[in-house]
Amino acid sequence: VPGAAHTNGGGTRVMIIGGDGYCGWATALHLSARGYNVQIVDNLVRRNYDLQLGLDTLTPIASAHDRVRKWGEVSGKHIDLQVGDICDWEFLSQTFQAFKPDAVVHFGEQRSAPYSMIDRQHAVYTQSNNVLGTINVLYAIKEFNPDCHMVKLGTMGEYGTPNIDIEEGYITITHNGRTDTLPYPKQAGSFYHLSKVHDSHNMHFAARAWKIPITDLNQGVVYGVRTEETMADRALINRYDYDGIFGTALNRFVVQAAVGHPLTVYGKGGQTRGFLDIRDTVRCIQIAIDNPPARGEQMRVFNQFTEQFSVNDLARIVTEEGKKLGLDVETISIPNPRVEAEEHYYNAKCSKLQELGLVPHLLQGSMIDSLLEFALEYKERVRPELIKPAVDWKKSGTAVATMSAAVAK
Amino acid sequence: VPGAAHTNGGGTRVMIIGGDGYCGWATALHLSARGYNVQIVDNLVRRNYDLQLGLDTLTPIASAHDRVRKWGEVSGKHIDLQVGDICDWEFLSQTFQAFKPDAVVHFGEQRSAPYSMIDRQHAVYTQSNNVLGTINVLYAIKEFNPDCHMVKLGTMGEYGTPNIDIEEGYITITHNGRTDTLPYPKQAGSFYHLSKVHDSHNMHFAARAWKIPITDLNQGVVYGVRTEETMADRALINRYDYDGIFGTALNRFVVQAAVGHPLTVYGKGGQTRGFLDIRDTVRCIQIAIDNPPARGEQMRVFNQFTEQFSVNDLARIVTEEGKKLGLDVETISIPNPRVEAEEHYYNAKCSKLQELGLVPHLLQGSMIDSLLEFALEYKERVRPELIKPAVDWKKSGTAVATMSAAVAK
Ligand SMILES: NC(=O)c1ccc[n+]([C@@H]2O[C@H](COP(=O)([O-])OP(=O)(O)OC[C@H]3O[C@@H](n4cnc5c(N)ncnc54)[C@H](O)[C@@H]3O)[C@@H](O)[C@H]2O)c1
Ligand SMILES: NC(=O)c1ccc[n+]([C@@H]2O[C@H](COP(=O)([O-])OP(=O)(O)OC[C@H]3O[C@@H](n4cnc5c(N)ncnc54)[C@H](O)[C@@H]3O)[C@@H](O)[C@H]2O)c1
Repeated sequence: VPGAAHTNGGGTRVMIIGGDGYCGWATALHLSARGYNVQIVDNLVRRNYDLQLGLDTLTPIASAHDRVRKWGEVSGKHIDLQVGDICDWEFLSQTFQAFKPDAVVHFGEQRSAPYSMIDRQHAVYTQSNNVLGTINVLYAIKEFNPDCHMVKLGTMGEYGTPNIDIEEGYITITHNGRTDTLPYPKQAGSFYHLSKVHDSHNMHFAARAWKIPITDLNQGVVYGVRTEETMADRALINRYDYDGIFGTALNRFVVQAAVGHPLTVYGKGGQTRGFLDIRDTVRCIQIAIDNPPARGEQMRVFNQFTEQFSVNDLARIVTEEGKKLGLDVETISIPNPRVEAEEHYYNAKCSKLQELGLVPHLLQGSMIDSLLEFALEYKERVRPELIKPAVDWKKSGTAVATMSAAVAK
Repeated sequence: VPGAAHTNGGGTRVMIIGGDGYCGWATALHLSARGYNVQIVDNLVRRNYDLQLGLDTLTPIASAHDRVRKWGEVSGKHIDLQVGDICDWEFLSQTFQAFKPDAVVHFGEQRSAPYSMIDRQHAVYTQSNNVLGTINVLYAIKEFNPDCHMVKLGTMGEYGTPNIDIEEGYITITHNGRTDTLPYPKQAGSFYHLSKVHDSHNMHFAARAWKIPITDLNQGVVYGVRTEETMADRALINRYDYDGIFGTALNRFVVQAAVGHPLTVYGKGGQTRGFLDIRDTVRCIQIAIDNPPARGEQMRVFNQFTEQFSVNDLARIVTEEGKKLGLDVETISIPNPRVEAEEHYYNAKCSKLQELGLVPHLLQGSMIDSLLEFALEYKERVRPELIKPAVDWKKSGTAVATMSAAVAK
C-alpha cells in the first residue's frame, strides 16, 4: 500500500489547485500517501485544451473523479475533489472556507508558452486566467486565514537568460556606493512566462502588505512520468505530454526516439535550462510545505531544478541511451519557432531546496532508459504529426487561430 | 488662437488613448495645437468612477463631445473622438485600422492606487483593465502597423523605494565577475502600481519579439491644472482631482489650504517621490513622439519627472506660499492608509528627457501661487469630507465595498 509507512504529513490540510494536472496529480498522491489531508481544486480546463486542439496524453489517463476514487481504494486515503475555476470568486471563497487549508499549493494555471502565443486571444486568456486567479487566491488567504502558507509554482523562465549568474529570487546589488537586495530582474520570453512574472510581483507585494507566508517556486522543466504512487495502478497513471504545444523538451525527444522520428532541435540547440525529475517536483513541494516562512517574512523564493542541460545535451543523451536499446536515433535542427538566444551564458543557483533536504534524482542512464521503455510501451498511441512546433512567436497574430488550425497546419 | 504659431507636428497621426483624462486631455490639445493630427480614444470610465463614488473634479469640466467641439471652434483644428474600450478588441482593431496612427500615446488605464485597493473586485478590475488593454494595443500595432511608435505611461511607483539610486529603466549589474544590463528591479506598492510593472514586462517582451518601437514613460506625480490650451476657454478646462481616491499629494494639499483644512500628511511624511508640472507632461509626450526608438531597439525607458520632494517638503512649501496669500495653513499627521516606507533613501535619475530638450517648469512660488488662486476660485465646489483617505491597504478585503461605502464611511 503506497504511503502506508509514511505519516509525516500529520493531517496538514493542503489544497492543491491544479491537482488534476501533470505536476499536481503526482503531488496530490505523494502528499496523501504521506499523511497530509489533500483536497484537489481544478476546473479540468487542461483536459479541455487537449479536446480543443485534438491532442492527447501519451498515457491514457482516467477521469478526475475515477482516479481519485481509485486512489481511495488503493491507499485507503481520501482526497477531496472540487471541480471549479479559481477565477470564479464565489467558487474559490466557498471552497476555501469549507476546507480551511493550512497550505495552498497553486499549480492551477495555463502553463504552455506556445499555447499563450497562438494568437491575441490565447495571450489574453493566459494572462487573465493566471494573474487574476492568483489575485483571488491571495485575497482568500488574506481574508479567511492569513496564516495559510501559499506555495506557488513559478518558472525558471521568468529570469530569461541574463549574462550573469541567476540567484534564487533576489540579488544583492552595489550601485554608486550603496547596496540593496532586490527582486532579481525578470526577462520572460512568452506571454505565459510573463504571467508568472506578474504573479511573482503581485505575491511579493501581498507578502509585504498583508504579511501572508508565501513561497514562490521557480521550477525548471519537469521530465519523467513515474512516481511511486501514480504507478500503483493503471487508473492512477499520470499524463505525459509530447506534442508541440504542451510537450516539454526531454519528454518530446524520448517519444521521438521511441517512434523512430528524428529529434527536432530548435535552431542551434544551445538553449540551456534547468531540469528536474517529477519525483523531485513532489519532494520539493513537500519540503516547501514543511518549511513555511514566518508571517511578515519577505516572500521566499526557491529555484526548483536539479541540473542544467542545453537542448543539444538532451539530444545527445537520448541518442546514446536509445542506442543501448537498439534504437537508431537521428537529430535534425528545425527553424526555431521562438524568439530566444540560442547560444548564451547560463548559470542558475538551486541550492536552497537541497539545503532543506532535497536529494536529487539525476538524469542518468537509468532514468532515460525507463522513460524510453515507457514511450515504447505506449508507442501505438503516438501521433508524430503533433510533435512539430505548431506556434511561431513572430507570427502570433490577431487573426483568430482556431484550435485545430493552430496544430494541424 | 492657440497653436497658430506652431506647426512642428507636421500632420503626424497620434492616437491618444485616455485622451479625456487629466494628462490625456492636456496632451491632446498641446499636440493638436502644434500640428499633430490627434484622435482621442476613451471609454469615459474615469467620469463613471466619479459618478459611482460620488466624487467630482474641482473644476467643472465639459462633456467629452463638447470640449472637442469647442476646441475646433477655438483653434480651427479637428480632434477625432472615438468613445470605446481598448479591452474590446473589435472596437480597438477597427478604430486603429481606420485612423492609421503613426504613434499611440497610451494613458488609458485605471490610475488610482487607492481605487485598486478598495477591495478584491477593484484589484482584479484594475489589473484586468490595464494589463489586458495594453496587450491589445501591442497586438494592434504588431498586426496593423509595426512601425507605429507606442508611447506608454508608466509610473515612478514601479520602482518602489530601493536603497540604491533609481536609474531610467535599466541597471548595469556586475555580479560574480560578469556584467549585464538588465531591467531595473521593481517593487510596486499597490495593485495599480503593479499593473504598470506588468505592462512594462509585457512591452519589453513585445519590443524584443516583434521589434515594435516602444517608449515607457515612468511618470512622477503630476501637479497643476493650467496649460496654455486648456485655459483658452472655460469649456476646455482640465479636471482637477483633490479627493482621497484620485487626488495626488500636491493637488490635495493646495485644496486643503484653500478651504482652511489642515494638510493631511500620511504618517511621518518622509515619503519622497518625483514630481512634475502638467505643462511638462505634455512636453515630455511630444518629445517622446518626436524621438522614436528604431525598430528592433530595446524598449526605451525615461523617468518622467523634474524634481523630488518628500510629503513634508510639499506641506512646508504650501504652508509658506499660503501665508503670502493670507491663508493660515496647518499640517497634521494622520495614520498612513498605505503600506510604505515613511523614511527612506530616494535618488532617482531623470536626465534623458532633458537631454532631448525638456526645460522643466520648477515648483517655485509662482506655480503654487497660481494653483492656490485657482483653488480659491473654485472653493465653493470643494467637499472637504472627500479629501480624507478612504481606502486602507491592510483592510482591502473580499467583502464588497460598495462604491459609496468606500468613500463615505
Ligand atoms: N511541467 C513543467 O515542466 C513545468 C515547469 C515549470 C513550471 N511549471 C508550473 O507548474 C504548474 C503545473 O504545471 P503542469 O505541467 O502540471 O500543468 P498542467 O496543465 O498539467 O496542470 C495545470 C492544472 O491547472 C488546472 N487549471 C488551470 N487553470 C485553472 C483555473 N483557473 N482554475 C482551476 N484549475 C485550473 C488545469 O486544468 C490543470 O489540471 C503550472 O503552474 C506550471 O506553470 C510546470
Ligand atoms: N496623474 C498622475 O499624477 C500620474 C502619475 C504617473 C502616471 N500617470 C499615468 O498617466 C496616465 C494618465 O493619468 P491621468 O491622471 O490622466 O488619469 P485619468 O484617469 O484622468 O485618465 C485616464 C483616462 O483613461 C480612460 N480609460 C481607462 N481605461 C480605459 C479603457 N479600458 N479604454 C479606454 N479608455 C480608458 C479613462 O476614462 C480616463 O479618461 C495613466 O496611465 C496614469 O497611470 C499619471
